[in-house]
Amino acid sequence: MHSLQKQRSLLFQYLRSSSNSNNIIHNSKMILSSSSSLLLASNFSSTAGKVIPCKAAVAWEAGKPLVIEDVEVAPPQAKEVRINIKYSSLCHTDLYFWESKSVPPIFPRILGHEASGVVESVGDGVSNLKPGDHVLPLFTGECGECPNCKCEDSNMCEVLRINPTREGMISDGKSRFSTIKDKEPISHFLGTSTFSQYTVVHSGSVVKINPTLPLDKACLLSCSISTGIGSILNVAKPKKGASIAIFGLGTVGLAAAEGAKIAGASRIIGIDKNPNKLEYARKFGLTDFVNPEEHERPVHEVLKEMTNGGVDRCIECTGNINALMSAMEALHDGWGVAVLVGVPSGDAVFKTNPFNFLNEKTITGTTFGNYKPKTGLPTLVDMFMNNKLELGKFITHRVPLSEINKAFDYMIKGQGLRTIIDMND
Amino acid sequence: MHSLQKQRSLLFQYLRSSSNSNNIIHNSKMILSSSSSLLLASNFSSTAGKVIPCKAAVAWEAGKPLVIEDVEVAPPQAKEVRINIKYSSLCHTDLYFWESKSVPPIFPRILGHEASGVVESVGDGVSNLKPGDHVLPLFTGECGECPNCKCEDSNMCEVLRINPTREGMISDGKSRFSTIKDKEPISHFLGTSTFSQYTVVHSGSVVKINPTLPLDKACLLSCSISTGIGSILNVAKPKKGASIAIFGLGTVGLAAAEGAKIAGASRIIGIDKNPNKLEYARKFGLTDFVNPEEHERPVHEVLKEMTNGGVDRCIECTGNINALMSAMEALHDGWGVAVLVGVPSGDAVFKTNPFNFLNEKTITGTTFGNYKPKTGLPTLVDMFMNNKLELGKFITHRVPLSEINKAFDYMIKGQGLRTIIDMND
Repeated sequence: MHSLQKQRSLLFQYLRSSSNSNNIIHNSKMILSSSSSLLLASNFSSTAGKVIPCKAAVAWEAGKPLVIEDVEVAPPQAKEVRINIKYSSLCHTDLYFWESKSVPPIFPRILGHEASGVVESVGDGVSNLKPGDHVLPLFTGECGECPNCKCEDSNMCEVLRINPTREGMISDGKSRFSTIKDKEPISHFLGTSTFSQYTVVHSGSVVKINPTLPLDKACLLSCSISTGIGSILNVAKPKKGASIAIFGLGTVGLAAAEGAKIAGASRIIGIDKNPNKLEYARKFGLTDFVNPEEHERPVHEVLKEMTNGGVDRCIECTGNINALMSAMEALHDGWGVAVLVGVPSGDAVFKTNPFNFLNEKTITGTTFGNYKPKTGLPTLVDMFMNNKLELGKFITHRVPLSEINKAFDYMIKGQGLRTIIDMND
Repeated sequence: MHSLQKQRSLLFQYLRSSSNSNNIIHNSKMILSSSSSLLLASNFSSTAGKVIPCKAAVAWEAGKPLVIEDVEVAPPQAKEVRINIKYSSLCHTDLYFWESKSVPPIFPRILGHEASGVVESVGDGVSNLKPGDHVLPLFTGECGECPNCKCEDSNMCEVLRINPTREGMISDGKSRFSTIKDKEPISHFLGTSTFSQYTVVHSGSVVKINPTLPLDKACLLSCSISTGIGSILNVAKPKKGASIAIFGLGTVGLAAAEGAKIAGASRIIGIDKNPNKLEYARKFGLTDFVNPEEHERPVHEVLKEMTNGGVDRCIECTGNINALMSAMEALHDGWGVAVLVGVPSGDAVFKTNPFNFLNEKTITGTTFGNYKPKTGLPTLVDMFMNNKLELGKFITHRVPLSEINKAFDYMIKGQGLRTIIDMND
């Protein structure tokens, strides 16, 4: 037996006999895969294989303020990654499931899915990530093996796609979170649960980013910005000079406006019932702003008149089903495309006159702007790195984890855009 | 004054003084534009500028048998073409407006829009067509100037698009048809009214074809075959190896199946409640046939099971709104596209769960398979000329004009595919 083989064999025997053998073995494998003793050391975190106590904002009931709790985060199992979350931001989807108005309530739960962090340790079979990597945890993933991952048009991975009803991890259905006090398990959310200082995420849903990127901004790439920009560049695909109407000028809608500018749109029309959004429309370079409340006619009639017969592309970011139906009506026939981005209520029904289809209008939608997390998102990360995409302007508030409920208040009141939650503050 | 100028001047003076000056002047212009006396003769028909008496099948009431009447067909006005219709075939859209179950009844009317013929004379300003040209009159047109005509994605000409409520010609709103007996005007239909031995059509809706093509088959290119094939090649655009479900195995559906074969589909599934359509599914090389009546489960569940999660493309050719909603459900998420081709009833409402869009399914539709009549259809005509497209197999019946009601009976009973009506028999 060669000395390296012998060394590995002894280490495996030791690890198997330890109390946390399963959790540590995978780290040992990762270590043994490297012949550099320096790298060996850097790849091994002192907390690997151990339960980590930390703070998390726990949602105990629908619509009730989150409570900062002391929780325990179990080590990552096979193909899982434990991440030290540095920054989270609040997204409407968190609010949607926190309110649970039209979806089954799942509580207690740790919400949060737009975040950035640093890998603390990895489970068995994780070869492309290591402790210390700067990463984005994603609510959708890429297994690389399923028909959706193999299809260039789809990012709807059959294994790791968004699943808001899943309460535990994919591998064993169990939660990696529990309260320190009562050892009560706490449900995961979208496989991310980033309102915790540490979380466990499937490795197929973790994207490594360049460590020089500022994590307090990069976090926005893990949901809103990618969704908005991708809805234009990957889905609506307008021609240069197109007119684009964006329903809802939140962060996603304004990111869609950034996409529209990149695509060379000649007309970018923002539609929002909140008159304060006019300020953002100006700041983000939209050409027009329409407040439906200021018109007696349906908004689609206003838009058709503004665009000489219909808008080339409509992006629906509010999740309001009536807005989606308006978007369909507002399209130009022959080539108009409407893209659903906002998440409608669970009981919403889309209705339209089928002659809209015979008039060659198209409606589709997207999750995460059709970016494949691992193979597609890096193009957007590169844009950020190369200063072709400004993220700072989407950030209007910053709060420490202890004040996370302020982020909910800002969003409910429609104040500002993104609130960054400093998870270590 | 040069002799040719003098000759022209004298002819114009003569024509202006004639009783039918407006109708003849445009012919004279066409004649004068040619310096060849031989061409001058061939471009001038003996009936040009005159009212032509002929036979036509007139629909007097909704759902009542057509009546063969002696009618008068006025000369073509500016930008119009008078065509001697050689062959018509019956399409479901004729049946739809003949029944007028969900659309306002417009009678008396000369139906018919799938046909072929020979130009008898042309109106002023028609430069690309001349008497003797073999042509297809089309229910949709291409003005070449409007935004839709200038957009490569659209065939929805703003001037000449399908308009089933128009009763007369675009130029003056008047009919070119009247009964010989009572001089009662008879409404046009879709700008074509090909159930008449002569008809007047806007020149932007007339496509010249190679005179060697058999007119009794080429007529099918003016609606059904182009619609079906185009729904695949121009709209659904499946990848090689795709699965395609076709709802409704009439002529349009089976033409879509031809398109699917051209596109290299690996699976072509026909869905029809008429068990006799199994025979056509076999004859046209479909890989599967599903009769929804033979299943207790909804047909979309059957299709999803057959295709391991969903069909890549669905083509809805029945016009049944429930079939369209099934098509949407049957799609594979991530990339599935449903295309509406059949004409739903006027009061139909398409309904779907908007999460179908977030799951990245797309629904659109098409008129005339997105072929631009003048600049796009010739590619399909070439396919027919080069024997890459067989039309004869779509023809199952032939009747003389005097027995046109038999064509309606065959269609109502679901017997066969296309019935060719010999307009001169």
